[in-house]
Amino acid sequence: MRLYINDVAVRDGFQIEPRFIPTAAKVELIDHLSRTGLHKVEVTSYVSPKAVPALADNNDVLAGIERVPGVVYVALVPNIRGVQNAAAAPKKADEVNGVISASETHNRANINRTHEQSMGELPTMVKIAHEAGMKITMSLSTTFGCPFEGHVAEDVVLRFVERFREMGLDGISLADTTGMANPRQVEELTRKVLARFPAPDETYYTLHFHNTRGMGLANVIAGIAAGVRSFDGSLGGLGGCPFAPGATGNICTEDMVNMLEDMGYDTRVDLAKLIACARMVPELVGHDVPGQVMKAGVTMHLHELPENLRP
Amino acid sequence: MRLYINDVAVRDGFQIEPRFIPTAAKVELIDHLSRTGLHKVEVTSYVSPKAVPALADNNDVLAGIERVPGVVYVALVPNIRGVQNAAAAPKKADEVNGVISASETHNRANINRTHEQSMGELPTMVKIAHEAGMKITMSLSTTFGCPFEGHVAEDVVLRFVERFREMGLDGISLADTTGMANPRQVEELTRKVLARFPAPDETYYTLHFHNTRGMGLANVIAGIAAGVRSFDGSLGGLGGCPFAPGATGNICTEDMVNMLEDMGYDTRVDLAKLIACARMVPELVGHDVPGQVMKAGVTMHLHELPENLRP
Repeated sequence: MRLYINDVAVRDGFQIEPRFIPTAAKVELIDHLSRTGLHKVEVTSYVSPKAVPALADNNDVLAGIERVPGVVYVALVPNIRGVQNAAAAPKKADEVNGVISASETHNRANINRTHEQSMGELPTMVKIAHEAGMKITMSLSTTFGCPFEGHVAEDVVLRFVERFREMGLDGISLADTTGMANPRQVEELTRKVLARFPAPDETYYTLHFHNTRGMGLANVIAGIAAGVRSFDGSLGGLGGCPFAPGATGNICTEDMVNMLEDMGYDTRVDLAKLIACARMVPELVGHDVPGQVMKAGVTMHLHELPENLRP
Repeated sequence: MRLYINDVAVRDGFQIEPRFIPTAAKVELIDHLSRTGLHKVEVTSYVSPKAVPALADNNDVLAGIERVPGVVYVALVPNIRGVQNAAAAPKKADEVNGVISASETHNRANINRTHEQSMGELPTMVKIAHEAGMKITMSLSTTFGCPFEGHVAEDVVLRFVERFREMGLDGISLADTTGMANPRQVEELTRKVLARFPAPDETYYTLHFHNTRGMGLANVIAGIAAGVRSFDGSLGGLGGCPFAPGATGNICTEDMVNMLEDMGYDTRVDLAKLIACARMVPELVGHDVPGQVMKAGVTMHLHELPENLRP
């Protein structure tokens, strides 16, 4: 079965690093990632450079990278201003990704807007993106739980998906923003979404999990069981949880690919190349990252016999 | 659905720590663990104190702990000598757990015996344990893969299970010793084991996973789907992988319980108490441990509103 793997490390991981990653280093990493077989690479965002100085070089990154045919280059856009800036870039992203939280409290905390303000802007965002020749997708943050409100009702999620579909978006990402999803919930809720609003193509729905409580890869399996074929990860597990110092953020892309390939799925990703990319990350960011396979090696990485057993 | 959770940190975790954990600290931790609702606590081993000095205080630990009714206290025994010593202890373990590797190479590397040597000793081990009033179980290491040989044939695993059943063992643990199992493999192989050699009771079969490549909790879900009800974990994810510096070892008990309780399973474990135990571990061992929930909090641990949103 074909699965589609996207990496968000350069945007979602680098954005919280205190050290500015030089534009050339970002470009080099993206150019390596482009050759691993990933479906999408999220490369930057169009957010106020005061809010996210780490990604202030959005236009330079998009202008500097080499576009590999078949790879979708994504930029995050939180609002109309973001889409306008993305549309005005000398070299544009292929796709912009907006964001709204299923929890109103989280939406106000994250992007300072009520649900209706966010949804009110969306048709304009779609129009600007499409007129600029860019696809536009939406991430529904806190789909599986909100760190302020707790439980998020399934009906709220279903209603958002319905409205996104009506607005002509090119894709929807259901995001477990702070790692609250469990596999049973993922399978049940995702099944409902796909049953009521069937996917027009294999990559319309994406699941975006965090590993904050260790359940990330289990949730991927649950998402596959429910019928999703596209999954986000972050190289090396880069990223963190703003609410829990020391806790991990996004699931690790190469750990996910290692698992899925072991299980016989076809990710089209060259795992050795992806691990080589992951091993560039600790030096770039100046600290260890949570990825496991980059340390342990792929599953079938065999070890030398102990001395007493060597022929 | 009732699940049974066992913790192996005091044995499997502490045994590789360079710092000797004082007997009184082990006893205190075990006494706390005994009151969390865990099914079994693996408290020590009867291995040569030269090979594993960290657990040389086996008799003192077993004599020092307070036995909580309903909790099964386990000691690892690698051979006849180990069972003899466990049987001669002033205060005995309730259960001893022997170990053999499905891979012959790993068996020779781990306990310096061929398969036939190991299997030849087993009837004597069973006899000594039972005569001393102790139960005896076997762990089948490298069930899902060997770091030297790679793939382990399912027939080899099935043949070991068959022979264990014939020998009157009280339980069998299928162990993914170096984190090579994937969820598809776990579900398929475990289903075959349970179909051919049905479990006499809910805790006869245990699955023991490592999180070396991040798949540990996904494998637990696969094991439940196959019909297993008993799972090992290690407090705080304590333990490591002897082949991969920096990689994790056993799955983390409290991360597993958090996931299973979120999914609606009945583990009987008081998660708050278990997390309190996990938070004792970093100071005892003098380093950080991989557990996530001890850092992030349980799933429904909510956070204060950001200042601008407070009433």
